[in-house]
Amino acid sequence: MRGIEIKEVSKGYKDTKALDHVSVQFEDGKIYALLGRNGAGKSTMLNIISNRIFPDQGEVLVDGKPARENDQVQQNMYLMSEQTLYPAGMKIQQAFQWSKEFYPKFDMEYAMELARMFGLNTKKKVRTLSTGYKSIFKLVLALSVNVPYLFLDEPVLGLDANHREMFYRILLEKYIEEPFTIVISTHLIEEVASVIEHVVILKDGKIVKNCATEELLAGGYRISGKKEMVDIWSQGEDVIGTEMLGTMKTAYVIGSSKEKWKKAPEELEVAKLDLQKMFIQMTNR
Amino acid sequence: MRGIEIKEVSKGYKDTKALDHVSVQFEDGKIYALLGRNGAGKSTMLNIISNRIFPDQGEVLVDGKPARENDQVQQNMYLMSEQTLYPAGMKIQQAFQWSKEFYPKFDMEYAMELARMFGLNTKKKVRTLSTGYKSIFKLVLALSVNVPYLFLDEPVLGLDANHREMFYRILLEKYIEEPFTIVISTHLIEEVASVIEHVVILKDGKIVKNCATEELLAGGYRISGKKEMVDIWSQGEDVIGTEMLGTMKTAYVIGSSKEKWKKAPEELEVAKLDLQKMFIQMTNR
Repeated sequence: MRGIEIKEVSKGYKDTKALDHVSVQFEDGKIYALLGRNGAGKSTMLNIISNRIFPDQGEVLVDGKPARENDQVQQNMYLMSEQTLYPAGMKIQQAFQWSKEFYPKFDMEYAMELARMFGLNTKKKVRTLSTGYKSIFKLVLALSVNVPYLFLDEPVLGLDANHREMFYRILLEKYIEEPFTIVISTHLIEEVASVIEHVVILKDGKIVKNCATEELLAGGYRISGKKEMVDIWSQGEDVIGTEMLGTMKTAYVIGSSKEKWKKAPEELEVAKLDLQKMFIQMTNR
Repeated sequence: MRGIEIKEVSKGYKDTKALDHVSVQFEDGKIYALLGRNGAGKSTMLNIISNRIFPDQGEVLVDGKPARENDQVQQNMYLMSEQTLYPAGMKIQQAFQWSKEFYPKFDMEYAMELARMFGLNTKKKVRTLSTGYKSIFKLVLALSVNVPYLFLDEPVLGLDANHREMFYRILLEKYIEEPFTIVISTHLIEEVASVIEHVVILKDGKIVKNCATEELLAGGYRISGKKEMVDIWSQGEDVIGTEMLGTMKTAYVIGSSKEKWKKAPEELEVAKLDLQKMFIQMTNR
């Protein structure tokens, strides 16, 4: 079987359980979003998959083989994360060369072209870069390693809107040319909504949603009106959150049917939910 | 005159001109966005206003008085920026106490309440915080100092969607209770669009736009269709960007009239522009 399989993985730190019996699959050639609040366990999961830390329980299979301390398997994946594994005094161009040692398919020409497009000066030292350009440096590496499994942990931190748009475009162009597995973990949910095919949501170390983006978006509605009316109409629905303002109530529902809301009375205000609003309601404490 | 007046300010670093004869006013009791790409000069401008660096030319007046090395003036403003001016070994609660020394109106009770709401452990040391929580720590300070002029440089860096929403809400609540001047510099433009009253856009050290948000949004359109048709209809308009795809063209216009586009032929696709798309077109290189 091609793809990544996470089986019953648990990991704890001191007094917190970062991951609690998590099972999930990342199929070959699909684009995923791995979403969660700060501290939900996203980075722990990505670090376990890419062998930087070990789980207390469970295992990760890559193309059916255990990932743990398996160099051959590890060469097939790349994690772009907050930590850079490069000596801070290294120049960017040197870091590119260094990457070629680990990732034989690293495309130096493409990396230099991307650096030019993003205005990244490759003669600079990695440690002298601003937050935005540090992200750009790491993005260029991630886009150039050419591995079948790419994990991007908060890839656009500090990037301006133009560079974010350019990054999403380049990532999609690359994917369309030759599909591979991409897992994007980000807090800028609305911006990736049109890029991702599948959404996995972590909350307090557990998976609370795992489904196709289209399916999730299709059934999400915000229903507002008099409390009694909203209560009647949201009966039997999967209500992920509510708000009260005086006698008025708002209910957020998912997995609902379009047909039902066509028949809603005029006093009810019914609107589609976007992915970010849905996420906020599903993960609020 | 109440408010902040930046008069003909220039500042250069080695081979770049960070600010080039910039003049702009921030009026008393208004919410501004200061937008610009990475390196456009936003942080330089905020650092000059708050006396952390000095301009090569020009001056900054606060309520009519020069800001430069004027302690009384400086006590009336607060800049939340990437650099924290606190000893890294300091605990959060100590940093709060420290702030009270400089800002007599610092509200300790409110700061502790906000820390609780954002899940910030005040017993932790500042340097042990993650990117997201470092921003939250700085936000809590900025919201608690109670000065008439508040400058926020990338306030939501690393915050999850729920915390971003909470921050915008708290900021507006505080502003509505007692209006003060807020200048927000951020790359997450679409999210602040509904919060800000006025937009200032910097490009390569110069101001390229300075107007009311509502006014800017009202006149922005994206016009797509056959090249010839788009060219005819966009004649005489303020075209901020174009894209070509085969024989099809897209033009982005601002300051345009709604009436005109009501009369556009069906072959033209006309859509409203949001603030982030507008910004991208105005600042692309």
